[in-house]
Amino acid sequence: MSTVEAGALSGLSADPKVPAKDATPEIEKLVVNTVRVLGADLTQAFKGGHPGTVMGAAAIGVALWRYMMRYNPKNPEWFNRDRFVLSAGHACLWQYIHLHLAGYDAWTLDTLKQYHNPDFGIAAGHPEIEFPGIELTTGLLGQGVGNAVGLAMASKNLAATYNKPDFPIVDNKIWCFVGDGCLQEGVGQESLSLAGHLRLDNLIVIYDDNSVTVDGSIATCFTDDTSAKMKAMGFHVIEVYDGTNDLTAIIKALDEAKATKGKPGFVHVRTIIGFGSRKQNTGAAHGAALGEDEVSYVKQMFGFDPAKKYVIPDEVYDYFQPVVKRGADDEEVWNILYAQYGKAHPVEYAELEQRLTGRLPDGWKDDLPPKSALPTAPQATRKSAGIAVQALVPKYKHFMAGSADLMESTFVNFKGQVDFQCPDTGFGDYSGRQIRYGIREFAMLAAANGMNAYQKGMVIPVCSSYFAFWQYCISACRLSALMGLRFIGLGTHDSIGVGEDGPTHQAIALAGFFRALPNFNLIRPADAEEVLGAWEIALDAEHTPTLMCLTRQGVPLLEHSDRAKVHKGAYTIFANYEGSEDPELVLIATGSEVWRAVESAKKLVPLRTRVVSMPLQSRFDRQPAEYRRATLATGKALAVAIEPWASYGWARYAHASMSLHTFGLSAPQETLFELFGYGIDTIVEKVSQFVESRRMEGKIVLPEVGDFEELLLGYAKKHAGPELDLH
Amino acid sequence: MSTVEAGALSGLSADPKVPAKDATPEIEKLVVNTVRVLGADLTQAFKGGHPGTVMGAAAIGVALWRYMMRYNPKNPEWFNRDRFVLSAGHACLWQYIHLHLAGYDAWTLDTLKQYHNPDFGIAAGHPEIEFPGIELTTGLLGQGVGNAVGLAMASKNLAATYNKPDFPIVDNKIWCFVGDGCLQEGVGQESLSLAGHLRLDNLIVIYDDNSVTVDGSIATCFTDDTSAKMKAMGFHVIEVYDGTNDLTAIIKALDEAKATKGKPGFVHVRTIIGFGSRKQNTGAAHGAALGEDEVSYVKQMFGFDPAKKYVIPDEVYDYFQPVVKRGADDEEVWNILYAQYGKAHPVEYAELEQRLTGRLPDGWKDDLPPKSALPTAPQATRKSAGIAVQALVPKYKHFMAGSADLMESTFVNFKGQVDFQCPDTGFGDYSGRQIRYGIREFAMLAAANGMNAYQKGMVIPVCSSYFAFWQYCISACRLSALMGLRFIGLGTHDSIGVGEDGPTHQAIALAGFFRALPNFNLIRPADAEEVLGAWEIALDAEHTPTLMCLTRQGVPLLEHSDRAKVHKGAYTIFANYEGSEDPELVLIATGSEVWRAVESAKKLVPLRTRVVSMPLQSRFDRQPAEYRRATLATGKALAVAIEPWASYGWARYAHASMSLHTFGLSAPQETLFELFGYGIDTIVEKVSQFVESRRMEGKIVLPEVGDFEELLLGYAKKHAGPELDLH
Repeated sequence: MSTVEAGALSGLSADPKVPAKDATPEIEKLVVNTVRVLGADLTQAFKGGHPGTVMGAAAIGVALWRYMMRYNPKNPEWFNRDRFVLSAGHACLWQYIHLHLAGYDAWTLDTLKQYHNPDFGIAAGHPEIEFPGIELTTGLLGQGVGNAVGLAMASKNLAATYNKPDFPIVDNKIWCFVGDGCLQEGVGQESLSLAGHLRLDNLIVIYDDNSVTVDGSIATCFTDDTSAKMKAMGFHVIEVYDGTNDLTAIIKALDEAKATKGKPGFVHVRTIIGFGSRKQNTGAAHGAALGEDEVSYVKQMFGFDPAKKYVIPDEVYDYFQPVVKRGADDEEVWNILYAQYGKAHPVEYAELEQRLTGRLPDGWKDDLPPKSALPTAPQATRKSAGIAVQALVPKYKHFMAGSADLMESTFVNFKGQVDFQCPDTGFGDYSGRQIRYGIREFAMLAAANGMNAYQKGMVIPVCSSYFAFWQYCISACRLSALMGLRFIGLGTHDSIGVGEDGPTHQAIALAGFFRALPNFNLIRPADAEEVLGAWEIALDAEHTPTLMCLTRQGVPLLEHSDRAKVHKGAYTIFANYEGSEDPELVLIATGSEVWRAVESAKKLVPLRTRVVSMPLQSRFDRQPAEYRRATLATGKALAVAIEPWASYGWARYAHASMSLHTFGLSAPQETLFELFGYGIDTIVEKVSQFVESRRMEGKIVLPEVGDFEELLLGYAKKHAGPELDLH
Repeated sequence: MSTVEAGALSGLSADPKVPAKDATPEIEKLVVNTVRVLGADLTQAFKGGHPGTVMGAAAIGVALWRYMMRYNPKNPEWFNRDRFVLSAGHACLWQYIHLHLAGYDAWTLDTLKQYHNPDFGIAAGHPEIEFPGIELTTGLLGQGVGNAVGLAMASKNLAATYNKPDFPIVDNKIWCFVGDGCLQEGVGQESLSLAGHLRLDNLIVIYDDNSVTVDGSIATCFTDDTSAKMKAMGFHVIEVYDGTNDLTAIIKALDEAKATKGKPGFVHVRTIIGFGSRKQNTGAAHGAALGEDEVSYVKQMFGFDPAKKYVIPDEVYDYFQPVVKRGADDEEVWNILYAQYGKAHPVEYAELEQRLTGRLPDGWKDDLPPKSALPTAPQATRKSAGIAVQALVPKYKHFMAGSADLMESTFVNFKGQVDFQCPDTGFGDYSGRQIRYGIREFAMLAAANGMNAYQKGMVIPVCSSYFAFWQYCISACRLSALMGLRFIGLGTHDSIGVGEDGPTHQAIALAGFFRALPNFNLIRPADAEEVLGAWEIALDAEHTPTLMCLTRQGVPLLEHSDRAKVHKGAYTIFANYEGSEDPELVLIATGSEVWRAVESAKKLVPLRTRVVSMPLQSRFDRQPAEYRRATLATGKALAVAIEPWASYGWARYAHASMSLHTFGLSAPQETLFELFGYGIDTIVEKVSQFVESRRMEGKIVLPEVGDFEELLLGYAKKHAGPELDLH
């Protein structure tokens, strides 16, 4: 990675001190005012956007990009860079301006002028992961905090795993900028509590406390004593009282946070939103341009010419100039260190390099047992997923596997597990890859996004909870899909099969979200073999998250289940007749209902019946039309879907469905399957009735689009709706 | 409501003091041990369930149901009862046992024996709202806290609105029992922060701190200083160090919390999970039966006969006996007070009685302006929803309207608004019905559920945020539907029409969840007239929540839009030809795309084209088959859906759709509609191509089920998937 002679710079530290302040107060004032005026100009040009934070937090930005953060603007992807996450994503213009001043090639002044503009430049309305200097896409408040926690966890784990005496190749910091919103949102709170527990001293959260929110004064809705709360959550808290103008105090506070060991840092900075405008300190400065008059006023206030736009004095560029050299030097030193590391620790070096491909090493599929080695006795698919966990997670350090307090129920606990914990606690250490997220599903997924985003997907998070609790974190799942990141999600106890826990724990509509989501694999495997197919899909997909829906209850290993065919999304798994004739009926089932469909088909003889297992709808949608038509016998057979979730979405593949049209119940699982109509006899009866209703003059007539029918089954709670004659 | 002479008991307080402890320590020990042994027996009988809390928190239960809470077991629906919410819903057996001991008729010993059993008794695996003594369905951790906050808000509002000097007809307390999980979950944190801000001193949160969670010691995942944190959030915190056995200390603490003014109470009680078993203080006691041997051991420990099951000594029943009389007396006193109130304040009394119907007074529909009075210039549907807010919310005290910090953007701020705030803050008072939830969407909806559950739906919450942020609270929306509660939700900025905020704020899959959810109205109205139809549906539906998807951008008032027809879910809004011939093409559109469909149809002449507006799919599904077939011209015309969300679900109604198959982008809204293919010319072109592709020998051939086509439109981000040839 380095062309410099190894050893030439040996002895240099990879952890340079924060540079001393090296400019006059006048220059610094000019710099922060330039940022402010630029913010006012750019939002005014667009007549929208968020000027308030640019103007209020200008000094924080200068402290970060000019002094505190270690990064190389000429190589935004440098491995050991500090990471910066703007959790308050709406303040992105503030970040963009500093990326420009710091010398990122992509962030020219012309780029800044595209802020919010129709030409799809990189200056998007919220920061997007694709663009240089942006670590993750943020803007849905609070999640950036979780992302930063995930980055800090990844960094800690890599450091604990790969650093060697004299080779601190991972020793960066993670900076997270938050506003009131991030601290009010539950996901922010969960994430902070987790970070405090894990004692992530490589994480520094900066709270831009400007006391103003969209609707006005924060005092009308949020009166926590935030500093006290952060202390109670295990943070080292540092106060800055004039964050608008006291650059020295900000630098001192950030430096103290950076130096603190054993606790994450929380720097509580009071600022004045929209500073310099007559709208300062009001909601009016938050999310709207200031207006031409006001922009003029601001310019006059700060000694700028109101007639000129986008003015950046040479002194300002000069002021940021050292950043470029320092960044290049830092990376160069690190490159030498890393090259030396390669010689001293070739095994670890090779492993790291392999991980930077974002994939497991070739041959990992061979680690999964063949079908012939799978247990034939009925086994819950959550337990079958554990087979993959045991086969892969201990062996490949890429994985960090955890649960929101359901580790054993979801089978993510693996052989040789070491808890990812601060070593001082005695519960584990940072090289551990078993993560106890606590009862914090949303933080788990937001952190997973941070981990996977750390560097080229070198960390693959495995996250687990009951399927119903995935409701709590769908927004993080969506952002994973949107960013092209990945996690491997295990959603266990995925239906009325959860039994006695009752309707709260029986999610029947949740799949509707995940199946509609682009770039997302919602897989519901039928048995252990299909579970391994699901893992193959999840591990093949470098830029797509996967959530497997897994049973609490046992399901048999099916004779014709085939992991290779799972990759097609759906395939024929059984037919109750010999020969090449077209079927008259196709039963499409998923997960734990596939064996029920097979058993039903056996009883439906002589009706020529085929069973299609459809674990991954979106994958099936992408198969060639011939395959899809042939599999479903389109235009030839009646198709009925069987799944104990809502019918929504099934009309794409079937003429009718055996679905749940109401919420579940609390009772033993088998009782529920019978009661709700998934007993084999009920399936045979309902399907037969349906086929007969469609037979005219001895021939089956296929229904039209718009005639999709929900074959009504058993129990319906009264509040499912006034009428139940759904079709 | 009372048959007792008014005045007969005048002078009695409606707020009786907590009774003095009136039993010997021996009896009390017998009582708590009976609860413990019963818990061990009942879980063992089922071989599952949660014995740990029953045994650890027995004394807390006794303190609550025997001493602290004001309620009438013979009338669980008494208006002024204290409300109890078990946020840690898995511990329901603990509550059920106390309901039995307290004398609730429905909660017999036989009922308790049905715990988790297959006969669908009321002793469900988590508490369910339908059953006596249960205020809300809980079990998805953390949400119960929000429910309790909502109950406390409703109580405060009713008290401030209806109490008069000498008539404290609303002066109850809200009790909430939480475990570690509720405090870790983000929704719990949001809700507590909100309660602290609102200074809800009628709320008392009891933390059963047993240091053990499903996965083991809480110390491995949660190390907040919870008491300090609660103080920082504005709670009055009281510590109880031996909550397992020190009943006196528990009562004293709860009494102090009850008496505290100006702050909600947080009683931090340390208990030993599974107390009395050798599994005590371990995860093994949490969620599994103890085993026969262990149950015997527990019985011996507590001086019970191991050979006998379900033993409740007479002394235990005697001990609880005073509760029944006290409850009856309390209600009687209140009934007299309420009767007197009726005479002294007949207007308020009548209003209260009307509200207890759970409906608005007859004639409310006349408050909505007729179509002829609606603005014809293009107007955003979020603004049109504000017409209903202004027409209804100021007039009817049933409504409490709020937002998660987007009050002005979502138009829920209404004429004459008073903020719901503690009067000491100077920001408003508790009679206010404008709620500033802060940036806490999930708490907003969990609180809404509590408000609507307060008493027969007498409070109707209106909740608002950007549609994308409804991702944060889908689980509370689902629980609302499951419980048969209602809220009126406004999800504004509902598509790529949000523009520059970009893909994070452009939810395209979220409707998939809500449309799949039973007993839920997801309505996407096309214009102001349809918006008013949506409000009518929401207000007609007493036991169904509604979420309206509303635009940021203006849409015209359509010539044939009709609020009455919105009630059918879908209807013909335009045809581009005269006469009664069947159409050749049906364009189905929703919301802001309906006018685009109409304009497109005009250009599609001479192709006989009908436009169907489909604001509420689930309502359309319940129309008679003839109506559905006639509206969609089933079997006669090609149908194409137009909506800038994912195509998922449209195959039920259409042969093809113009959908988004990728996430959005940051740019001005009109640019996005053009880029993504929703310009009129593009629609005409794509639809024409589709029709032509289906024309054989001059005749349009309708595709089969399984042949649903996604008409590919414009821009697709790279990570939408490797291939884009969706059908």
